[in-house]
Amino acid sequence: MSTKIAEQAADTHKQGVADGARFSGAAGPQEAESVMHINDLFTPSLVLDEGVIGRNIAKMADRCRALGVALRPHVKTPKSSPIAQLLRDSGAGGFTASTLAEAEWMAACGFGDIFYAVPLAASKVRRASALRKSGADISFLTDNLQAIGACGEAAAAHDIVLPFWIEIDVDHYRTGVELDHPDFMAIAQMIEGHPNLSLAGLMSYGGASYASTIDEARDLTEAHRLALLRGQAKLRANGIDCARLSFGSTPAVLHAETMTGITEARCGIFIFQDLFQAGIGACGIEDIAVSVLTTVISVNPGLNRVTIDAGALALSKDRSTQGRSFDAAFGLVCDIDGVVIDDLHVGTVSQELGLITSRSGAPIPLERLKVGTKLRILPNHADMTAAAYERYHVVRGSTQIQKIWSRTNGW
Amino acid sequence: MSTKIAEQAADTHKQGVADGARFSGAAGPQEAESVMHINDLFTPSLVLDEGVIGRNIAKMADRCRALGVALRPHVKTPKSSPIAQLLRDSGAGGFTASTLAEAEWMAACGFGDIFYAVPLAASKVRRASALRKSGADISFLTDNLQAIGACGEAAAAHDIVLPFWIEIDVDHYRTGVELDHPDFMAIAQMIEGHPNLSLAGLMSYGGASYASTIDEARDLTEAHRLALLRGQAKLRANGIDCARLSFGSTPAVLHAETMTGITEARCGIFIFQDLFQAGIGACGIEDIAVSVLTTVISVNPGLNRVTIDAGALALSKDRSTQGRSFDAAFGLVCDIDGVVIDDLHVGTVSQELGLITSRSGAPIPLERLKVGTKLRILPNHADMTAAAYERYHVVRGSTQIQKIWSRTNGW
Repeated sequence: MSTKIAEQAADTHKQGVADGARFSGAAGPQEAESVMHINDLFTPSLVLDEGVIGRNIAKMADRCRALGVALRPHVKTPKSSPIAQLLRDSGAGGFTASTLAEAEWMAACGFGDIFYAVPLAASKVRRASALRKSGADISFLTDNLQAIGACGEAAAAHDIVLPFWIEIDVDHYRTGVELDHPDFMAIAQMIEGHPNLSLAGLMSYGGASYASTIDEARDLTEAHRLALLRGQAKLRANGIDCARLSFGSTPAVLHAETMTGITEARCGIFIFQDLFQAGIGACGIEDIAVSVLTTVISVNPGLNRVTIDAGALALSKDRSTQGRSFDAAFGLVCDIDGVVIDDLHVGTVSQELGLITSRSGAPIPLERLKVGTKLRILPNHADMTAAAYERYHVVRGSTQIQKIWSRTNGW
Repeated sequence: MSTKIAEQAADTHKQGVADGARFSGAAGPQEAESVMHINDLFTPSLVLDEGVIGRNIAKMADRCRALGVALRPHVKTPKSSPIAQLLRDSGAGGFTASTLAEAEWMAACGFGDIFYAVPLAASKVRRASALRKSGADISFLTDNLQAIGACGEAAAAHDIVLPFWIEIDVDHYRTGVELDHPDFMAIAQMIEGHPNLSLAGLMSYGGASYASTIDEARDLTEAHRLALLRGQAKLRANGIDCARLSFGSTPAVLHAETMTGITEARCGIFIFQDLFQAGIGACGIEDIAVSVLTTVISVNPGLNRVTIDAGALALSKDRSTQGRSFDAAFGLVCDIDGVVIDDLHVGTVSQELGLITSRSGAPIPLERLKVGTKLRILPNHADMTAAAYERYHVVRGSTQIQKIWSRTNGW
């Protein structure tokens, strides 16, 4: 990346660290430098429990050690330097990024071995090359012969060698090239033969595991493992060495029976967890590290509902739990200490309002939801909810704010 | 607002204007000061057609003039000063805001008569008072006796008089107090009798109109109109003068038969329009002013699908068209000129990827969606989609970027 960008990103990082010391911007401009308890935060705000993410990270690190696979965590979930640092401290050997903005920020903060795991468009090679030229250890993704051809041309124009992973398609879930399609070998040969491209490895994504039972997730992981090994063998039979095999998705890795032969696991949501992950058995409710702090702004006993100042923008419109036994509408409701209040959910949202209703239709415990009360809403999908916020207010098993950590949103 | 905040907000505004001249930040750091055509933008980016919003604004201004009602447009949709200026130029007498951040920015830019139309929590009175003390002409909302009591106490503590609108509940759609509930008069009397509160008017929100036919929207508007007039009469019978009656929602106002007696219409989505509004007949597809510029990053003829770099974060997970005859999945697909490509939609999304599929199952016209091609995706709900972006790339009936306008996100 250019020196200027690196400086900007590093400044942002430093600012985030400084924010942590000063609590600036924590609660709207007026509240700066005085907030220490989440009850005093301007709402809506995002609260993160450092103790919970510590547990989640340790659990996944243990899981990967037990599987004999390196963990390459996905920063698309936290998008935050101090959390990347926690991941590195737990033994992460590299990182996965979902945007060039994340990759630039990670590189500027000194993190190495960054895999930008979205198929690269040739029009992005200029920015990708600048990043690599600045010294960033970053690799890219392709699944398409035309795309890698155009990227090779662009890399040549920028006089740089770009390392690419090839994504293979195992289950038609999303992207990737099928192993038995002629393009698979053509892509590998183009990368091998092109002076401005190099082969980083083979990867696949077990996204279908999100909609799976635990048994299905285990079988899915095995199908991906075998496909990656077969791809590796196929390359070797054609004289192409490919040492690295990368596989991902939190539930797939959690439920894998074996990952023998796979060199690294890519997962992100395990860091925060959420209601969807809890619903499919990848974690418990107590493992959800992020919640949206909100204020009760009106109550309507006659209609048995309570209005909060967290709506579609504050919670996101993610409805991934819809149609499941664990459907949580737009989120489950906790008191300020993070204790779930049974039978409540955010039933409907408009842009800046949420309506809390009871799932059973039983009367809402209004004594716990008086006007002015602060509540914490657990999200369906942590990545989508966190995206609306610039920063985390970090607690550690209590309601005292310990730190403020910045996020890197956008592209 | 404090002088410091006003300066910050004004700086942001100036920066937005300066951005317009310089095109800074338009396309990722590297592309600054050189982008003139949307094809050269980094993707995903948000494109706004100034010609279309000009038409939409003129149409609604005409509609309100014909109804004999003032237009108080909602800035929650555009969140951008130049658009507020266009609205004022078209005759808007005041503005509606959905966040204090919007209200602070509007006030700092010199816009007057701002109505922050989310029920105010007492914990926000500090920031609200600072804004009013800075000279901002801003009013607030309540629908609850406990809440207005707490706001009155807080206003007294900050030695300020805060004007409040009372929201009445006509159809149990969202918030508001029922006219026949004793709390209605109790709230009005508390506001009238409190030295730190004043009555701004009565308001209601016809949100149910979004799920209505045109006839139902007309009937709904009439029910709200009659309720607001009845509320006004009830207040007068109790010696409380209430000159202003405010009613909102774009489809309700568009389909109203009469708004006699109502003093102002609050609407926002008409400025941008979107697929939901087009679906319910509030506009045509050609009236949709915002689209997400995206790049084709992979094609898979075998699976009849195309991958773009606009996913759940770039498009939002709004599925408001779900279950309707006009279901658009995660958005309709246009070429770079904004011409809809028939039969295509963004069928599924993950965080940073969208998969374009055909609605009928017919083969996708791959010659129009080659790798590297830029497309424009029309959103289900413009407010939700725009929220992911810091700025608009403004065109005017072409693909040349005329200006860049900043947005005020967050709270």
